[in-house]
Amino acid sequence: MSTISNNVRKTRATLADGRDLFYFDDSAQYVSGELTRRLDDPRPLTDRFAPIVGEDGSETPITGPTMRYDVLTGEWIPHAAHRMNRTFLPPADANPLAPAKPGAAYSDGEIPAEDYDVVVFENRFPSLMRVPGVVDVDTLLEGEELWHQRPAAGRCEVICFSPDDKKSLREVSPTRMRTIIEAWADRTEELSKLDGIEQVFCFENRGQEIGVTLHHPHGQIYAYPYLTPRTTQMLAQAQAHRAKTGRNLLRDVMEAELRSGRRVVLEGEHWVAYVPMAARWPLEIHIAPRRDVADLAELNEAERDELATFFLQILEMMDRFFPAQEDGTLTKTPYISGWHQAPVGEGREDLRLHLQIFSFLRSPGKLKYLAGSESGMGAWISDTTPERIADRLIEEAKECTK
Amino acid sequence: MSTISNNVRKTRATLADGRDLFYFDDSAQYVSGELTRRLDDPRPLTDRFAPIVGEDGSETPITGPTMRYDVLTGEWIPHAAHRMNRTFLPPADANPLAPAKPGAAYSDGEIPAEDYDVVVFENRFPSLMRVPGVVDVDTLLEGEELWHQRPAAGRCEVICFSPDDKKSLREVSPTRMRTIIEAWADRTEELSKLDGIEQVFCFENRGQEIGVTLHHPHGQIYAYPYLTPRTTQMLAQAQAHRAKTGRNLLRDVMEAELRSGRRVVLEGEHWVAYVPMAARWPLEIHIAPRRDVADLAELNEAERDELATFFLQILEMMDRFFPAQEDGTLTKTPYISGWHQAPVGEGREDLRLHLQIFSFLRSPGKLKYLAGSESGMGAWISDTTPERIADRLIEEAKECTK
Repeated sequence: MSTISNNVRKTRATLADGRDLFYFDDSAQYVSGELTRRLDDPRPLTDRFAPIVGEDGSETPITGPTMRYDVLTGEWIPHAAHRMNRTFLPPADANPLAPAKPGAAYSDGEIPAEDYDVVVFENRFPSLMRVPGVVDVDTLLEGEELWHQRPAAGRCEVICFSPDDKKSLREVSPTRMRTIIEAWADRTEELSKLDGIEQVFCFENRGQEIGVTLHHPHGQIYAYPYLTPRTTQMLAQAQAHRAKTGRNLLRDVMEAELRSGRRVVLEGEHWVAYVPMAARWPLEIHIAPRRDVADLAELNEAERDELATFFLQILEMMDRFFPAQEDGTLTKTPYISGWHQAPVGEGREDLRLHLQIFSFLRSPGKLKYLAGSESGMGAWISDTTPERIADRLIEEAKECTK
Repeated sequence: MSTISNNVRKTRATLADGRDLFYFDDSAQYVSGELTRRLDDPRPLTDRFAPIVGEDGSETPITGPTMRYDVLTGEWIPHAAHRMNRTFLPPADANPLAPAKPGAAYSDGEIPAEDYDVVVFENRFPSLMRVPGVVDVDTLLEGEELWHQRPAAGRCEVICFSPDDKKSLREVSPTRMRTIIEAWADRTEELSKLDGIEQVFCFENRGQEIGVTLHHPHGQIYAYPYLTPRTTQMLAQAQAHRAKTGRNLLRDVMEAELRSGRRVVLEGEHWVAYVPMAARWPLEIHIAPRRDVADLAELNEAERDELATFFLQILEMMDRFFPAQEDGTLTKTPYISGWHQAPVGEGREDLRLHLQIFSFLRSPGKLKYLAGSESGMGAWISDTTPERIADRLIEEAKECTK
């Protein structure tokens, strides 16, 4: 256990199959008692890297996911259909993110504790995974020069925002949000140090409309062993801008939005939020720090403190964008929220931390589908305008309670 | 009326609001009768470019869609929330693609004919449109140097594959498919000649699962006034490959797939179909001509003839990929099918015609959602492998009736 910042205590545990788990606690009740509340993980899980034993006793080694280089687009595509040990599966109706039931022989879920504040653990079915002994080098598929493949040797983690499966991220306290920021920053820093990791992405998918079947409030953290296409694109744009002007593109974009003010939806001492001038989603907001910062780990205490309330305000604005239900309950706007962070290595100085939060929802019950133009050609077409989005956000912000 | 190829007759008409409509006919019954079967479009539609008249008699000029340059990604984003004349809207439950009812005073739909074979017309609510008098130049939004905008001066057309709303594209006859190919080729050639058009994209979205609410079998044709992101990416990859090897990338990819054979699902004299080695969708097939061809308009008669049956076979394979219904009816696999064509201008010699057909469906009732990694970072992750997809397609192809 270690106090990492702002009275947040980090404790590391290991799950029965060898995966890492980290508690990030802020509650007073755990100050002296945190060790007793943790259970060992008592589940009958095989070490996840142990060979799979067949009925005849034969052993098949675990293989990790592989990624292939799509030479048509220049993108790596992980194919996560790898062999895994899946000896113990929780019941289909269990919530794997819930705390363990008091006194249970073992937990139905992933978290061997009867309570927690915020917890992060390695995904059991990861799309990106480094398998010990699998050498991380390029090989040629079928001996063809055009066809490169490599182990998809990254890491996927899950972050639970709250032990309460009824609460959405918008409803956590500022103190808890501050702890979540601490956890994101910690994981960004730690994952950036791993061999071969080029970029860390902390994100949340919210809503059945985008395929989320697990309603417990949680996010994900991907450590990619390659630069993602979006980051590659932004980096090329930022480097061209640097070559031409000597300046940082993302900073110049934020300053242009501030000069205009037309689409700025929230301003703080350290943070700014605006609908980007070329917003492509029916609802989209970018949040940027005023200071040049590469990633969450580089944020100082004052920036983290303000972000906790600032982000909660933005989440409330997202939920006020569409009409409330008849009883006054806010709509749970489905959204994707992702922290764009600078690459770990080359290009780090050219990019800049910002959050992109956006929704597929065009109006209640009506989704924007990514059909031929978007999915086939990558060509987004919006049927609203950034100014309309900003106007509605600002109008509804007057009602905000935060 | 003109015979354009293969006994397909093209007839041009104009809709009441000024939009173009083109019939592509192959049926014998129209050889001498095609003029009498056409009705004028009798609907009370205002010319679509006429100013909008307010209650006080004031006139507001029509504006077309605008597109903004997203400096973070280098992509143009059309914002299609423009002012339009919408004086006559068909009833919500009408099928606007159905032929007119015999003897009706006017058609509920868009097609003023009591029957048709294949018909193409300009979309009434286009995302891309050139408005006469709107000058097609870059301007700076809010005077900011970073923020370029332009009229989204392209064109959007709709193509009806059949007058029968019960029939899907897979179920049309080879003769009718041949006519559809003729229509696609004709529209590609004509739209490529329009001012400012850089690329023509013929595509079909099929299935409620991807938001298609109109079940009449139809596709769309977009003429973009910019190179789409996917084409821009492919062109950069192809030009790098040309610089390194002197060869065409797309040809080399097809030849590598043929050498391997592992993922080839159908071969003809002129056409080849394979699951690409880095497939990103749960089900994805590419179809390529053996000869270097830039677009559909460059296909010769023999290639067009074979494509008609070849493409129908691929569509049947798509519908056999998932289990049939209990009564033996094939599943209507939701899909997006799009013709990647070389740009009209620069880079034309480096790209090459191919069709990409893919599905979001992972298994019956289970979609792949484009969540944080895909939508936020552009980073696709597949949970199958190209070889598994190919194996299943080939296995089921044995049952094909075509």
